[in-house]
Amino acid sequence: MATHPLTVGLVQHACYSRREVNLAATIDGLQQAAAQGARLVLLQELHGSVYFCQTEDTQQFDLAETIPGPSSEQLAQQARSLGIVIVASLFEKRAPGLYHNTAVVFETDGSIAGTYRKMHIPDDPAYYEKFYFTPGDLGFQPIPTSLGKLGVLVCWDQWFPEAARLMTLAGAELLLYPTAIGWDRSDTHQEQQRQRDAWITAQRAHAICNGIPVLACNRVGFEPNPSLANSGIQFWGGSFVCGPQGELLAQAATDTPQVLVTTLDQQRIDQVRRIWPYLRDRRIDAYHDLLLRYRDK
Amino acid sequence: MATHPLTVGLVQHACYSRREVNLAATIDGLQQAAAQGARLVLLQELHGSVYFCQTEDTQQFDLAETIPGPSSEQLAQQARSLGIVIVASLFEKRAPGLYHNTAVVFETDGSIAGTYRKMHIPDDPAYYEKFYFTPGDLGFQPIPTSLGKLGVLVCWDQWFPEAARLMTLAGAELLLYPTAIGWDRSDTHQEQQRQRDAWITAQRAHAICNGIPVLACNRVGFEPNPSLANSGIQFWGGSFVCGPQGELLAQAATDTPQVLVTTLDQQRIDQVRRIWPYLRDRRIDAYHDLLLRYRDK
Repeated sequence: MATHPLTVGLVQHACYSRREVNLAATIDGLQQAAAQGARLVLLQELHGSVYFCQTEDTQQFDLAETIPGPSSEQLAQQARSLGIVIVASLFEKRAPGLYHNTAVVFETDGSIAGTYRKMHIPDDPAYYEKFYFTPGDLGFQPIPTSLGKLGVLVCWDQWFPEAARLMTLAGAELLLYPTAIGWDRSDTHQEQQRQRDAWITAQRAHAICNGIPVLACNRVGFEPNPSLANSGIQFWGGSFVCGPQGELLAQAATDTPQVLVTTLDQQRIDQVRRIWPYLRDRRIDAYHDLLLRYRDK
Repeated sequence: MATHPLTVGLVQHACYSRREVNLAATIDGLQQAAAQGARLVLLQELHGSVYFCQTEDTQQFDLAETIPGPSSEQLAQQARSLGIVIVASLFEKRAPGLYHNTAVVFETDGSIAGTYRKMHIPDDPAYYEKFYFTPGDLGFQPIPTSLGKLGVLVCWDQWFPEAARLMTLAGAELLLYPTAIGWDRSDTHQEQQRQRDAWITAQRAHAICNGIPVLACNRVGFEPNPSLANSGIQFWGGSFVCGPQGELLAQAATDTPQVLVTTLDQQRIDQVRRIWPYLRDRRIDAYHDLLLRYRDK
């Protein structure tokens, strides 16, 4: 059963080439969030490094670590010393030539409560993730913690209602998205606004259609493209928390680091699902074709 | 292949106890929309009557008609004379004791292009639809027309991403929702705003997650509850059209009848899906549990 009420924190920061600078920003954010009462803190996607997927470069695999490994141990130490649950996002080296984009959940005692390997992997100009990450093979399984069952998903998963639904059906009490998404400066202002608005809207809809709070933590700052093949990414921050009707509870700025702390009324999940009982009415007898790539047979 | 560009119309009006008054409002709206260039017009849910599901009353079955029947013939005549495609919503009598909430699509020659029987049926205080409507048995099949393949869904279907996805996977080029939803006047203003915002957000997300335009047509006006068991429904209108990034293209008022006409750039579906290729990345190998009621085994 979910802890109620539950104060949560999100650490939104910029990333630079030096790993220790990024780690310091993460740890500073964790400590600020804990000081403000957060018992669960969500970090942004791949918070230990710049978003290295802007190019396909075999050298970047040097950034990956095993789990457990140095980064997970440093984060475990923070979870233990602050007595909080941390949802982190690491570049996992599982074996030579086998890497994942992996979320790791640390318990308040520093143990690893569970991991989630990003299931949906994007690949488009400046987001060449299919080069780096093998799609996850752990499925859509919430991670049980002392604060409730966490439906951890990662970035591109945001656009797939299937992922949010599967987590909900497995008893998740929160959906959490570490993410790294931003603007291409060559796009028009209108296109940029449409994209960010779509990103917010799609995730709020997961909250609404499943009667579950959603947390999304995104990085900020401009990161140039090392290949100069395009103009780099202006990460749009805007980390947010919404409740089980999709109502925005807290939202960070688009252009500055920020520690966002807010308190969730977890009893609202049950209340909202009484007035909007979508789980009651799903037509599971008519959903078989969701397992098809396309219905063109 | 979808017609491009495609001018669409939505007829939002109030309903009263006399069927001929409602039909006149519908026909007037169809004619206005056609005069403004609409080639496809979406009507609101159960436009021929008040929203009779506020109580469970066997007398109300008198409102139902066969398809084809008197209402469908009058609408077919409008489609033919105006040369437009019409998406209508009727209370279908299929057999004694067997009724559906059925959308009917009329071709420009007045023929019936296809029907869709509402698959997800709500039932909550003042929306007692499970008493009246047997859940649809036609599945989620787009209806082919001279203007493209129409993914017609109805009201409560709005809250189920599965329905929108299945229509998209079957080649739908538009999602269309006749709907009847409103406020309980005894709710707080904040709760009312959360509900309407959730309704808009969930449907915009179907557009976003599927790269497809969405049309939603809702009624306006206050309809008292005949049983006095509760305070009636203030239907919130707000019919809208959004594009394949969820961007709002047109939106009607919440409190007045309105004919909403706008033009869709149907080539944007292909363009948007090139930058957001979600259909490419669905993890159909890991979606089996979507066919379960709950993952508690």
